Amino acid sequence: MKTHTLIMPLDMHLHLRDGVMLETVAPLSAYSLSGALVMPNLVPPVTSKEDVKAYKERIMAAVPNDYFEPYMTLFYKNYDKAFLEDVAEEILAVKLYPDGATTNSDGGVKDFDIEAMRETLEAMSDLGIPLCVHGETAGFVMDRESEFMSIYELLAKNFPDLKIIMEHITTKDAVEMLDKYDNLYATITVHHLLLTLDDVIGGMMMPHHFCKPIAKRPEDLDALLNVALEAHPKVMFGSDSAPHPQNKKEASHCAAGVFTAPIALQLLCEIFDQYDKLDNLQAFVSDNAQSIYGICPEFKEVTLVQKEFVVPEKYGNVVPMYAGSAIGWSIESVE
Amino acid sequence: MKTHTLIMPLDMHLHLRDGVMLETVAPLSAYSLSGALVMPNLVPPVTSKEDVKAYKERIMAAVPNDYFEPYMTLFYKNYDKAFLEDVAEEILAVKLYPDGATTNSDGGVKDFDIEAMRETLEAMSDLGIPLCVHGETAGFVMDRESEFMSIYELLAKNFPDLKIIMEHITTKDAVEMLDKYDNLYATITVHHLLLTLDDVIGGMMMPHHFCKPIAKRPEDLDALLNVALEAHPKVMFGSDSAPHPQNKKEASHCAAGVFTAPIALQLLCEIFDQYDKLDNLQAFVSDNAQSIYGICPEFKEVTLVQKEFVVPEKYGNVVPMYAGSAIGWSIESVE
Repeated sequence: MKTHTLIMPLDMHLHLRDGVMLETVAPLSAYSLSGALVMPNLVPPVTSKEDVKAYKERIMAAVPNDYFEPYMTLFYKNYDKAFLEDVAEEILAVKLYPDGATTNSDGGVKDFDIEAMRETLEAMSDLGIPLCVHGETAGFVMDRESEFMSIYELLAKNFPDLKIIMEHITTKDAVEMLDKYDNLYATITVHHLLLTLDDVIGGMMMPHHFCKPIAKRPEDLDALLNVALEAHPKVMFGSDSAPHPQNKKEASHCAAGVFTAPIALQLLCEIFDQYDKLDNLQAFVSDNAQSIYGICPEFKEVTLVQKEFVVPEKYGNVVPMYAGSAIGWSIESVE
Repeated sequence: MKTHTLIMPLDMHLHLRDGVMLETVAPLSAYSLSGALVMPNLVPPVTSKEDVKAYKERIMAAVPNDYFEPYMTLFYKNYDKAFLEDVAEEILAVKLYPDGATTNSDGGVKDFDIEAMRETLEAMSDLGIPLCVHGETAGFVMDRESEFMSIYELLAKNFPDLKIIMEHITTKDAVEMLDKYDNLYATITVHHLLLTLDDVIGGMMMPHHFCKPIAKRPEDLDALLNVALEAHPKVMFGSDSAPHPQNKKEASHCAAGVFTAPIALQLLCEIFDQYDKLDNLQAFVSDNAQSIYGICPEFKEVTLVQKEFVVPEKYGNVVPMYAGSAIGWSIESVE
């Protein structure tokens, strides 16, 4: 059977939540990853050095071994330079949410007044702290990311030394931005390498495929696959794995988020193998992120095998993507 | 309080289902309507004179009074003229589903081979039987209706004396077809006069707003509102009210269909009143359909009042659109 080994895989966009949910999901990511960039959109959000340290401690307590690094983030607000200097050693990035754009994003940025944001963003630029951005406007759902491109341009031009990560990109428009501005980077989820809107609402409606940004058109999927499979050096894997209890998904009002943490590497192997691009997967799931963020993760070697894996119906009370279905690759060993 | 009276309101696209569901939903439509065009997509579909008569009897048995006319339809297949002549007195129209396009559409038309369909459609044309069409291709979900326009054109040109009803239209493209071909007509649902895709997946995901065709873009909503509010003479109200049990909607795989039957007239009053077009509602909910189909429904007078109505959480085990929310108009009396 075909096998493939990944060295120090990283998930550069992960929701670990808190409390019981943290205890359910953190071990699943920690098992196969060297590290993950942990999102700060708790309720209330992570906005101080104390918050960051305490959250990191809770994560480490939920993880059964030491071979996993939670790279911490701060929820974007307008912070002053002294604050950022102090918190810098505890975080890898600052995550910006437009107010109300997704789950637990209340208190995010309401408008993009560059002058109001200048002190913070210049300080981040000076201190070498990347800015991770949930790039969606409040417009029509299929246009939100594309409409946000002008804001990315504004940020990229005004802060040319600030590393700006376009998180979980879903459109051809966002892909095209990568080669336009030196300081724009991107993460791509595994579900956005598999789904279009047809897989969300084209047959039956699929709450476990519902996320923000929503999966887009076939031509968008093609553009994402293209840069991921080539492991474009400015693109990193970030799962945006976002667990919700089953009763918040299969409900009259379904929360946004696809839970992929325990199956992401397997699905990535399947996709990259299908396109005969397995050799590029190492860069997509680790090397590019190491270069972009300047990180040296703990050593971990994950060997996957082309053997059917039936995705469990649930992990705790969380239904994963493809629950109950067979996928083509399994994790064979983690060392 | 403002009141508005409708004479002989009609719903020209209604799913009444069968068995217990029929008993739950039929009285709700029969209460306020003089009649409704009843869809034939049972399992198995309604494809014979005996099927039609038996289904009509079951509907009448489920309806508590005599003042409601179920206008029956036949599920489109290639029928010969003798068959259609025989069944004609029992039906008002034939409903065409592309195979697999929506709930219970298996066995519908797989391709649109006009020559293979010619005998049936010419016979319908000769006999004056309108063709009702679920107009969606198997393409990308947001493009399916627009892509179907070329098929409507093919049908309209090849059978110029056949009345073709574009059912539950959702796009500007379909609206524009109305003035291009004399023999093209349309129904519009109430939910498609209220929702865009943003109301389905733009905030939380809303299974009770999920239907086929899916609600489209803001500019599509504007085009639909425009022809409905003007009561364009080729446009009729057809609710496409499509009940499913709650556990088939709030589920990992959610069935398509919005249940509006018990609130449709109230919502229509609210919409038409909001745009100061209440005077046109009579044509939209009855007069146009009478002209297009040449029908004379039983007399019924429904008076609505601008008084808050809190939509019940459920009717039987079916969750209606806007369950638990207040809408602006109520039914005051039915005579």
